[in-house]
Amino acid sequence: MMKLSKLFPALVWLKTYNRTDMQNDTIASIVFTIMVIPQSLAYAMLAGLPAITGLYASILPSILYSVFGTSRTLAVGPVALTSVMTASAIMPFAVSGTEQYATVAILLAFLSGVFLLVLSLLRLGFLTNLLSHPVISGFISATALIIIIGQLKYFLGVQSEGDTLIPLATSLYSHLAETNLPTLLLSISSILSLLLIRRYFSAFLKSIGCSIGMVQLFGKSGPVLVVVLATIVVAMLSLDKVGVSIIGAIPSEIPSITLEEVNMAMLKELLPSAFLISIVGFVGSVSVAQSFAAKRRQDIDPNQELVGLGLANIGSALSGAFPVTGGFSRTVLNVDCGAKNPMTGILTAFFILLILLFLTPLFFYLPKAILAAIISISMMQLVNVEDLRYLWRFSKKEAVLLLVTFSMVLLQGMQIGLITGVVLSLLFFLWHTSHPHIAIVGRLPGTEHFRNVQRFTVETHPSILTVRIDENLFFANARVLEERLQSLVSQNPAIKHLVLMCTAVNMIDASALQSLEKISGRLADAGVKLHLSEVKGPVMDILQNSDLIQNLNGKVFLTQHQAIKELEEKQAEA
Amino acid sequence: MMKLSKLFPALVWLKTYNRTDMQNDTIASIVFTIMVIPQSLAYAMLAGLPAITGLYASILPSILYSVFGTSRTLAVGPVALTSVMTASAIMPFAVSGTEQYATVAILLAFLSGVFLLVLSLLRLGFLTNLLSHPVISGFISATALIIIIGQLKYFLGVQSEGDTLIPLATSLYSHLAETNLPTLLLSISSILSLLLIRRYFSAFLKSIGCSIGMVQLFGKSGPVLVVVLATIVVAMLSLDKVGVSIIGAIPSEIPSITLEEVNMAMLKELLPSAFLISIVGFVGSVSVAQSFAAKRRQDIDPNQELVGLGLANIGSALSGAFPVTGGFSRTVLNVDCGAKNPMTGILTAFFILLILLFLTPLFFYLPKAILAAIISISMMQLVNVEDLRYLWRFSKKEAVLLLVTFSMVLLQGMQIGLITGVVLSLLFFLWHTSHPHIAIVGRLPGTEHFRNVQRFTVETHPSILTVRIDENLFFANARVLEERLQSLVSQNPAIKHLVLMCTAVNMIDASALQSLEKISGRLADAGVKLHLSEVKGPVMDILQNSDLIQNLNGKVFLTQHQAIKELEEKQAEA
Repeated sequence: MMKLSKLFPALVWLKTYNRTDMQNDTIASIVFTIMVIPQSLAYAMLAGLPAITGLYASILPSILYSVFGTSRTLAVGPVALTSVMTASAIMPFAVSGTEQYATVAILLAFLSGVFLLVLSLLRLGFLTNLLSHPVISGFISATALIIIIGQLKYFLGVQSEGDTLIPLATSLYSHLAETNLPTLLLSISSILSLLLIRRYFSAFLKSIGCSIGMVQLFGKSGPVLVVVLATIVVAMLSLDKVGVSIIGAIPSEIPSITLEEVNMAMLKELLPSAFLISIVGFVGSVSVAQSFAAKRRQDIDPNQELVGLGLANIGSALSGAFPVTGGFSRTVLNVDCGAKNPMTGILTAFFILLILLFLTPLFFYLPKAILAAIISISMMQLVNVEDLRYLWRFSKKEAVLLLVTFSMVLLQGMQIGLITGVVLSLLFFLWHTSHPHIAIVGRLPGTEHFRNVQRFTVETHPSILTVRIDENLFFANARVLEERLQSLVSQNPAIKHLVLMCTAVNMIDASALQSLEKISGRLADAGVKLHLSEVKGPVMDILQNSDLIQNLNGKVFLTQHQAIKELEEKQAEA
Repeated sequence: MMKLSKLFPALVWLKTYNRTDMQNDTIASIVFTIMVIPQSLAYAMLAGLPAITGLYASILPSILYSVFGTSRTLAVGPVALTSVMTASAIMPFAVSGTEQYATVAILLAFLSGVFLLVLSLLRLGFLTNLLSHPVISGFISATALIIIIGQLKYFLGVQSEGDTLIPLATSLYSHLAETNLPTLLLSISSILSLLLIRRYFSAFLKSIGCSIGMVQLFGKSGPVLVVVLATIVVAMLSLDKVGVSIIGAIPSEIPSITLEEVNMAMLKELLPSAFLISIVGFVGSVSVAQSFAAKRRQDIDPNQELVGLGLANIGSALSGAFPVTGGFSRTVLNVDCGAKNPMTGILTAFFILLILLFLTPLFFYLPKAILAAIISISMMQLVNVEDLRYLWRFSKKEAVLLLVTFSMVLLQGMQIGLITGVVLSLLFFLWHTSHPHIAIVGRLPGTEHFRNVQRFTVETHPSILTVRIDENLFFANARVLEERLQSLVSQNPAIKHLVLMCTAVNMIDASALQSLEKISGRLADAGVKLHLSEVKGPVMDILQNSDLIQNLNGKVFLTQHQAIKELEEKQAEA
């Protein structure tokens, strides 16, 4: 049973699930369904797909995650970041609006799902650790900015293309003269309404006597109200006749692909994008899941999350949609609506299905500019300048990392930006660990403590040099260690014994061992004995398996104190 | 003066240079010049260039390194590894023997030189640390094997092409029927002579009464003898008339390129190869330089080595040659000939120039099969199976790394093999550091020492959990830390205080800080206080600049003992 519940986390909460839970969850799901629809439509549009695809992507994925995921409250569906990455990935292959475009989107969702499952099977989830904080921060800010700029075409009612700053701006500028006035007016009024509602609606509800619960819930319903209102206005005034772009008729068939359409060459070229989309989606989703789980002392199993999100994406592909993941604003909405367990995910899927089956004509007059407004306003919160300021104070190097990632995403695109950031953070780390802190130490008089000669007044011995290295010993710094020790010995001809104090060494690899063997051999040639002291258990296990210990011309001392005592006695005898 | 001698290391030894030194160096240089010629010709052939180019590559580079390099005995010139990498890099652009081929070789040398200088200027030498021991070992073994197989065409006197195992073998097999019998006989007899001379020549010299010094010196002259003998035999019997391939007439002009020939697109495509050649060459060279310097307690400055080798390569380009570096066998020969300071490099250059000017007709009848034999025999020593066996015993993971690099070089080529190895070693490291050793610790009764609860019988407190993390805290494990701590707390509902013991933390970055802040916030939500203990100085400096300390709902304790004492008292009061 233990194992089964690990594979189907749903089994855990289902055991105690009762009628009251069902009633609460039904209400929460109905409210959540209504609230989440504008967001879902908007993010499908962001992915360059018909807005309705956002609803397709909210059914099967949500059910699959509810059964296989480990978070109780995470809401899975279309999310801004992965949607815009999807649009950018499809752009080289197809034009938005074509059947080919939808096909590539489905393939991307499928590949992302397979990737996540493979990562889970091979326990490769640690790869996501490559996305360091500054890289993610720069990536999100730049992507949000690109998204906002990308929405301008909907506000103006013009055409424009591109997924990086310069082509986007150029294209927009060249079409500026074609601005559609009714669209622009509609856009400005919806942005203003959304902003005003967000700021004052809760206070207004409170002032007319709503309960705190009601205020908390309906305070977030601003987008729904604006969508409904704008749709009515467009329909009544027939604004679509004067150039306002609307969603229009919903296709009666869910898009699907046949095997013949799958082109191996294209599949291969899609792999990197699918990989990045799944990694970015996974990292964001787990982070949201963890922050909500922690408050209730619940646990998230990242490896099982890979399974849940992987199946959700495969479900999205089967539904003819595009890559999905767990979203922050979606989950906040879910929790605010009262979701406490994954049953809401299943019920929400059911209600969205009902809407798809019976209520799509209601969306006919929904203007695209409103969806663009919803997107832009939610993206504005993701542009994070504070983070840069904080990093600048704390670590210039990491601030530069953020800035480089940010600029590369803006100018060269999301994929290149992300990869540049990852490579740069690896290089920075490598630089750091290649310049390990190495201290010459001596004994604090009258104690058994050994400290840095540069910071403390300590006792040293002319023919015994003790060096403490404050870093793991592995390939990235193996040769540096070699150089530094050699240079120390060549500068101090009086040295007869070199003691390497290993208190801070948690790990050692073959490259470091080889360097130590070389050092040991060279020191022997130069008439110097190499000793080790304070070697940790796991490191000693490795050393014992190696040739170093046999070939070492010195000794391994348990403590530094012992080492010095014995070596000083030996020197005194000589 | 200090600074000038750092830029021109030659100034140091020139200060005390006298007439006796000059006499000794002249003799050493003459002997070395004669000994090194076969090797230089052979490695030029390995690079796919006219053998004589090996001499061009031994003049200016040797002088420039002698002035700017920091090793006293390193011999710089054509080296097997970089030569075969050069051949493999040029192959996509030109056919061996054409003018275009020589042009690309010159460009490669120039780019390698520029790369090395840039690495030096930007202090990026640490990048070479990416080449871990298993990767280098697998790379060298596979490359040596490819080189040996590549020589078979010279032994058989047939055509064959390719720089990876399968094309090479296929091509060779298809031409097997065209084997030239005189060439094959010549090859077999020269391989046998070389092997016999290597094994018995020293003993023979000793038996006829040579002094130890003479034996040591002339024991290595086997290749020269065989080359001279074979050249005479070929000339006398006119073996070139029956299909034995000879070096033939030496072009009277040194190849050079004009700006018009430099194609920007090609230059761009050559960059990765040039980069890898310079990195591999640099790593090999520094390692040789260091091992010879260590015996005499001399010091090698890797950053200045970048300058020396960079200028040597630019010198090689100006001489119409190909990438060069410091070689192991070349340096051994140099030391055996009595070289003690870089003047021998300058004198050797002079003597090689003399040979080029006046004695090249002597090389006319030199058969290529002999050079191939010299190459093959020296490569046989580089195929290192012992290393694999050793690694397998010591670390399966690193043995796999070696095997993967080895196989990829054989099957996919040197560049892909090397890159695969580097990426894989980074991934292995990332995996390791993403799975840090995290121990729950308790107090050894009656002491102030805290040890792992799983290894020792220790005292713990039900509401206080102390966790020791044995790894640096940075992006690669920040989220893991988050997950592990969250999971520990969610599994132990009684916990009120979590103490993070930081004895093994040498470094912390923004990602880890962010994770700690998140953990701190979430633990606060769950009613748990987060404390830190035993934070090292440099880490504390960083923490003090961050928001963590202000937002921490617990305290930072100097020692773990203090932490437990204070928290236990607090718990007792409550």
